[in-house]
Amino acid sequence: MTNSTQIAIIGGTGPQGKGLALRFAMAGIPVVLGSRDGQKAAQTATELNQLLGPHCPPITGSDNQSATELAGELVILSVPYSAHRATLSDLKPQLTGKVLIDIVVPLAPGNPKAVQMPAEGSATEEAQALLGDDIPVVGALHNVSAVTLNDLTRAINCDILVCGNQLEAKKKVMALISQLDVSTYNAGLAESARCIEAITPILIRLNISKEVPFSHAGIRIAPPSH
Amino acid sequence: MTNSTQIAIIGGTGPQGKGLALRFAMAGIPVVLGSRDGQKAAQTATELNQLLGPHCPPITGSDNQSATELAGELVILSVPYSAHRATLSDLKPQLTGKVLIDIVVPLAPGNPKAVQMPAEGSATEEAQALLGDDIPVVGALHNVSAVTLNDLTRAINCDILVCGNQLEAKKKVMALISQLDVSTYNAGLAESARCIEAITPILIRLNISKEVPFSHAGIRIAPPSH
Repeated sequence: MTNSTQIAIIGGTGPQGKGLALRFAMAGIPVVLGSRDGQKAAQTATELNQLLGPHCPPITGSDNQSATELAGELVILSVPYSAHRATLSDLKPQLTGKVLIDIVVPLAPGNPKAVQMPAEGSATEEAQALLGDDIPVVGALHNVSAVTLNDLTRAINCDILVCGNQLEAKKKVMALISQLDVSTYNAGLAESARCIEAITPILIRLNISKEVPFSHAGIRIAPPSH
Repeated sequence: MTNSTQIAIIGGTGPQGKGLALRFAMAGIPVVLGSRDGQKAAQTATELNQLLGPHCPPITGSDNQSATELAGELVILSVPYSAHRATLSDLKPQLTGKVLIDIVVPLAPGNPKAVQMPAEGSATEEAQALLGDDIPVVGALHNVSAVTLNDLTRAINCDILVCGNQLEAKKKVMALISQLDVSTYNAGLAESARCIEAITPILIRLNISKEVPFSHAGIRIAPPSH
């Protein structure tokens, strides 16, 4: 049954997808997880629901196509970059009339401290080119640590930079993400994803580095000092 | 007279260069400003010294070639992107044995809310390619607002992401910049400049936007929340 406020998280059984599912459910937003294997998604949903209080809408799970169809409007894509193009091609029919939130970072194969951008410039631009202009793509949530998302004792230590070529779609995504108690910023057109996606490997580098006294760093927009 | 701790700021009569000169002088570091017009640089230095207390080493000014020669080791390049290649070609002989700190952001002509990257990927990579591997290039200080730098009543609200292919040079630059009472982070190889330089137009966009309740935003690496 389609619920207008329900969001889908494609690739929802990975660490980032699970953490986002928990955070959105805690914010009262119904979530359906998608996976190539619908049974695995349903099983993951069951496990996640055990971490949630009774006031949270239950997370459900399904195959990617069904999960996309079950989304009211907003569909989060959270697959490894290696599955980015194929997943989008598979889901293009179901994405008609929806907005895709692309959180994928094209990390270089074997090197999480670098990106290897697709020919279009970034994953978000690749998705927009692949889906066509009738399906708005919004890049967001690239820089949040999966460990932080899954540690429900912690607030999210990261502002969310949001980009895309269609302003109305960006506003809907910013309104959604703001419910996670984070600051969201309109960071411009889809081409800003070349920067935003590439912040993630810099944060991964800092997290690995022994020179930095903490892990799971986020990034924040800082107002002027007084 | 060469002073081993003296730094040069090429393009030092622009807003970013002047602000950095003031901040470094306040930290006790001797600064020589460079300009194509040495007399203009000297005049700017005189003006800046009037803003500084008597305990600060005086800022001096000279033409770009002389200023580069007068630097102990570290030379900051702070010219508009349109002058990036030509300035580096001119100064290559004087830069031998020094380290270039490239702070230039290749903003798109006529659009400060976008970058237009050179073929090498970023200004820092362009500089490294042009100067050759014997002159280390370190990208840094791209994201600090010139307005903030010149407002000496304010602390700098921006962490400094530093990148480059030669670790020892990066360490020297991080040690220098740390004296401005900011946090510096090793953000990886020169290719990280594709991201770091591109953060600046995103900040400019936010500063222009009426949706954001402040201007002169910086960026910060955020530790985990508690």
